[in-house]
Amino acid sequence: MRVGDFVSKRHFKIEWAHCDPAGIVFNARFFEFFDTATWEMFEKALGVKQQALAETFNILGIPLVDARATFTVPAKFGDTVEMHSQISEFRRSSFEIRHQIFVDGKLGVDGSETRVWAMLDPDTGKLKTKPVPADVMAKFQHAA
Amino acid sequence: MRVGDFVSKRHFKIEWAHCDPAGIVFNARFFEFFDTATWEMFEKALGVKQQALAETFNILGIPLVDARATFTVPAKFGDTVEMHSQISEFRRSSFEIRHQIFVDGKLGVDGSETRVWAMLDPDTGKLKTKPVPADVMAKFQHAA
Amino acid sequence: MRVGDFVSKRHFKIEWAHCDPAGIVFNARFFEFFDTATWEMFEKALGVKQQALAETFNILGIPLVDARATFTVPAKFGDTVEMHSQISEFRRSSFEIRHQIFVDGKLGVDGSETRVWAMLDPDTGKLKTKPVPADVMAKFQHAA
Amino acid sequence: MRVGDFVSKRHFKIEWAHCDPAGIVFNARFFEFFDTATWEMFEKALGVKQQALAETFNILGIPLVDARATFTVPAKFGDTVEMHSQISEFRRSSFEIRHQIFVDGKLGVDGSETRVWAMLDPDTGKLKTKPVPADVMAKFQHAA
Repeated sequence: MRVGDFVSKRHFKIEWAHCDPAGIVFNARFFEFFDTATWEMFEKALGVKQQALAETFNILGIPLVDARATFTVPAKFGDTVEMHSQISEFRRSSFEIRHQIFVDGKLGVDGSETRVWAMLDPDTGKLKTKPVPADVMAKFQHAA
Repeated sequence: MRVGDFVSKRHFKIEWAHCDPAGIVFNARFFEFFDTATWEMFEKALGVKQQALAETFNILGIPLVDARATFTVPAKFGDTVEMHSQISEFRRSSFEIRHQIFVDGKLGVDGSETRVWAMLDPDTGKLKTKPVPADVMAKFQHAA
Repeated sequence: MRVGDFVSKRHFKIEWAHCDPAGIVFNARFFEFFDTATWEMFEKALGVKQQALAETFNILGIPLVDARATFTVPAKFGDTVEMHSQISEFRRSSFEIRHQIFVDGKLGVDGSETRVWAMLDPDTGKLKTKPVPADVMAKFQHAA
Repeated sequence: MRVGDFVSKRHFKIEWAHCDPAGIVFNARFFEFFDTATWEMFEKALGVKQQALAETFNILGIPLVDARATFTVPAKFGDTVEMHSQISEFRRSSFEIRHQIFVDGKLGVDGSETRVWAMLDPDTGKLKTKPVPADVMAKFQHAA
């Protein structure tokens, strides 16, 4: 287990399109924000464009196997939020990303995604996990 | 030019997830409804599962080149709407689908999509339109 | 703690609009499905239209405080899925809904939402939880 | 009729979440981009936060009555696009916004929204259009 010390930060404005009849961000949107933040974090940490990640590392992708979030402070239309994303754990062929969204400086959403480093098994034609390369893990230690 | 007389109908309930802070369906959702209705209309008229459409007709798909809608009566959370979709015009390699959404029996959204019948050009690797097969057009006349 | 024995079931088709470049349902959509299924479950169990729930019980709503899901079998464009939703736990003023989505008869998504029974505190103007009424809980035991 | 000469520009990256199984932006997302761009344009031109627009001008909002788009160049996951939005026409109580999205410097999406300047009629409790204030129109001439 190694924890990545690279924190990827995003600032963005809550859009009308994100909000529900209660005037706050509809919960599914947060999982969309998580996904987008993960791609961006990989791009920044590895220095590889997100659309080239699979080809560069000869993988199929980084499919999601678990996602969760706790909602404590709602984000409203027009709010500017700050989001912090980082690898909270690297396991052999999977990893967990922690996503925190701050609203007015307060932690409003605390969530995580678990993803696997996956290739297509040439024998079975199915998805198969493979170990996260050591140099990929290393980039999350030293990137800043 | 031939007009399809097959009308594909859907009834569905407006979900919380569809609505914006004004408590009504967010406009982009209607274009999602249009897309879903088009796939369903093709499945019903041609008797081919939507996910098998491309392979069955040896095309890449039916990409959208134009979409438009006029909004007159808002649809709210919990409303049950009725949607009518039909081919309003077949041209050589493109066609227009008219989508109408009725709220409480009144026409609330009147829209259309223009799509092309497209293949992948083996020489250029690019998208290329091809004529809509006569038997595809015929199915929209006789299907019911 | 009481477990609801009412299971709300939905069957629906995976739409093109739900899917991502991997050709499978984009994860955030599952949380949208969860939300929609919860509203529908309440409507069916309580016999109150979803848009009338808040007014009927003199609450602000049933805001979400936690959502999570594990993804094991992907759902693809055109798949027909079966979804089961039920209250897995009633606590004093909160409750947990378990959502399971079956793809080809196999459990593909196993998730949950935790929600609170909430009113607007007239003194502070803020959200405040209140006990879930006994007759609401009872409806989830006997409804079918 | 007065044309606004204020052009609101946005640059953003196409996200995985925006794309469909064809690997390109799903059409409904463009209408979401249009909506977001309109709110941002008003904020920039009028110097009023988007969430304060209604209250500042004593209106209910700027509801959409028509939206349309022509799609010529697809935008793919990871593409950085440039978007230009401007008022193409002010009528008495309505206005049209033209939205253009450039992909690799080429016009990929050319669309428009028609919106009305609307208040709540105190007598009927219904939406009612009112003339766009002259100083609002003026701001779109001189803002930059």
